[in-house]
Amino acid sequence: MLVTNIGQLVTIAGGGPRRGAAMDEIEIISNAAMLVRDGLIVAAGPASEFPTDETDIVDAGGRTVLPGFVDAHTHPVWGGNRIDEFEQRASGATYEQIAANGGGIQSSVRQTRSASDDELGKNFARHCQWFCRNGTTTIEAKSGYGLDLETELRLLCSLKGTHQLRVVPTVLAAHAIPLDKSKEHYIADICEAILPEVAAKKLAVYADIFVEQGYFTADDARLIMGRAKELGFKLKMHVDQLSAGAGAELAVELGAATADHLEQTSEAGIQALAASSTFPVLLPASVYALGKTRYPDARRMIDSGLPVVLATDFNPGSSPIPSIPMIMSLACTQMHMSPAEALTAVTVNAACSLDYFDRIGSLEPSKYADFTIWDTSDFREIVYFCGANLLWRTYVGGIQVS
Amino acid sequence: MLVTNIGQLVTIAGGGPRRGAAMDEIEIISNAAMLVRDGLIVAAGPASEFPTDETDIVDAGGRTVLPGFVDAHTHPVWGGNRIDEFEQRASGATYEQIAANGGGIQSSVRQTRSASDDELGKNFARHCQWFCRNGTTTIEAKSGYGLDLETELRLLCSLKGTHQLRVVPTVLAAHAIPLDKSKEHYIADICEAILPEVAAKKLAVYADIFVEQGYFTADDARLIMGRAKELGFKLKMHVDQLSAGAGAELAVELGAATADHLEQTSEAGIQALAASSTFPVLLPASVYALGKTRYPDARRMIDSGLPVVLATDFNPGSSPIPSIPMIMSLACTQMHMSPAEALTAVTVNAACSLDYFDRIGSLEPSKYADFTIWDTSDFREIVYFCGANLLWRTYVGGIQVS
Repeated sequence: MLVTNIGQLVTIAGGGPRRGAAMDEIEIISNAAMLVRDGLIVAAGPASEFPTDETDIVDAGGRTVLPGFVDAHTHPVWGGNRIDEFEQRASGATYEQIAANGGGIQSSVRQTRSASDDELGKNFARHCQWFCRNGTTTIEAKSGYGLDLETELRLLCSLKGTHQLRVVPTVLAAHAIPLDKSKEHYIADICEAILPEVAAKKLAVYADIFVEQGYFTADDARLIMGRAKELGFKLKMHVDQLSAGAGAELAVELGAATADHLEQTSEAGIQALAASSTFPVLLPASVYALGKTRYPDARRMIDSGLPVVLATDFNPGSSPIPSIPMIMSLACTQMHMSPAEALTAVTVNAACSLDYFDRIGSLEPSKYADFTIWDTSDFREIVYFCGANLLWRTYVGGIQVS
Repeated sequence: MLVTNIGQLVTIAGGGPRRGAAMDEIEIISNAAMLVRDGLIVAAGPASEFPTDETDIVDAGGRTVLPGFVDAHTHPVWGGNRIDEFEQRASGATYEQIAANGGGIQSSVRQTRSASDDELGKNFARHCQWFCRNGTTTIEAKSGYGLDLETELRLLCSLKGTHQLRVVPTVLAAHAIPLDKSKEHYIADICEAILPEVAAKKLAVYADIFVEQGYFTADDARLIMGRAKELGFKLKMHVDQLSAGAGAELAVELGAATADHLEQTSEAGIQALAASSTFPVLLPASVYALGKTRYPDARRMIDSGLPVVLATDFNPGSSPIPSIPMIMSLACTQMHMSPAEALTAVTVNAACSLDYFDRIGSLEPSKYADFTIWDTSDFREIVYFCGANLLWRTYVGGIQVS
């Protein structure tokens, strides 16, 4: 398949992750073409370099082609819904108050445990459709609404049900403490039952934990993440979201691949990240959707040389937003990132944070043909005209999925 | 045409505008149908009340049907673009600084004057497509990037080029002072040439003005709006956006149909509006896109009994956002409005503010069949899952346009 007549081809070629000012350097080729064979990119470059006898043609009509977005932090499957909590927050209730009254994560846990496999599968399929139509081709996907062995396994199994998106699975048993167990008892369950079983069944690549007041402490994290590491998981950690807890430093101490959220992270935390190989994954939609205004300090992180990643945090509570273009808009309007930096953060940097940059995150020969075509001649319009839905088509492995 | 199998039909029937708590009262009928003849609604109600022998059927498949959105404040046609300014703001420049350096409105004026009619028409048609695919069926549409007789007329003529949307045209010659004229000279042009010519050619229903430091003063507004009223225009006014200037009180004094923006309006301004028939039109996307956090105080206005209207303010500078669902999301997450209040604000209240509620703004017999069908069984998901793009179809006068 030859994609011809590409007005603007944004390859983001040249390797990564991009540190510091280099996040602004994205390769853009005008009047380009891209050759795809067997789901892989063979070549991407100026149109003049391509054969003219190809018969399987996709005419991009002067549109813009980008690498498929890599959404490095999602909670994409759950039972029931939490729209009533959305209304309660509109009336002034805080996320913390709703959680204290049995809402929040615990509400989704109740509804997820009672949902059938079929319901979970349909819920996930619906969300995958939304990701695809917003230009996302790979998601990192967490469990965490089961909080018991059976339901955590069911959630992770449900993630296998898609053929549209690439999915990198993460076990987030340590998302909250279930209401029917003591914390000590549940931590023992995680370490002795859930993590070993998920490892044995190869259902997840990453293990994750929510370090926050009322959830898990730094010492809990040392215990659980230590066990996860023994079992061969790579680590991710939710830290410094609602309260400052030196979570970035903790993620570095434990050798986590990513430290996610970081709204409350201090300068010391940023410097700890800068001296490590841990990626900062910023989730502005969970600030926006909770009606808060303290966004993570992306500007300072980028200026400190950190390879910033942006992701949706898609979930039924704090971020019911599946759209990477909306995340890029938040980054540019609320966090002083440029459109090029935002694009790097959702492609090459995100792919690197998932240790997947050999196959995805840029348009280069031998990578998967995961790409999107947009109804614009300038990629910045995707961010600028937020809500215009400029996506024309999404391809995963050379197959059109949206 | 019979629309069958409607899971949730939100008619918003019962008249308007809705003042105070009544903004939350929207009629929702489950398992409903709607009969359309000659572009008008014949009946909308429980499915059991409808004939079964109709052959022209649209099966909504259990989806949700809403009245088409009424976007009561847009600037939908201009020449060129201002993406570079979007990048400058991401780097920390303010809207005011960019305007002072010849950017902002003056940049669009330069590019609009040099654009051909064909370019303007294509620009407008592209934006109309975006409105339709976000569920909007009627827009109020302003000129204002010409600032001379010839170009203001060209802009207003270009608004006639659509057959997709209903358009309520507004002459906004008093958008800024052109760089090639003194203010006195330009005000004379407006009063003696532009407004009379627009009135004679019947190119606009409303006249509008930007009252702000560096643009037009209250006394300028008294002069220009007084002349507009003589010529038969109804009045709209941009007030209290960037600085507090008792603009709401001024709009009431001049008998304006709407006072738009109101970010800086005082309690006295709210009380003046409450004692008047002037509608407050709130434009949260221009707060969001400028990276500000002071939203208009919708909660206090609603609690004071005001029939709040929400609109996009779609324009190339302060709000490049054409999506009413995004506006409703901003209202619910940043302004403490409920989803039902937000829906009332973009349908019945918006229609009333344009004196158009006899034909649009709710799904009732004898009104235009302007409606939308959404891939959800609960209208609140349209706001909750911001960016998921749940629209299935848009109809204007019974004709599918998206």
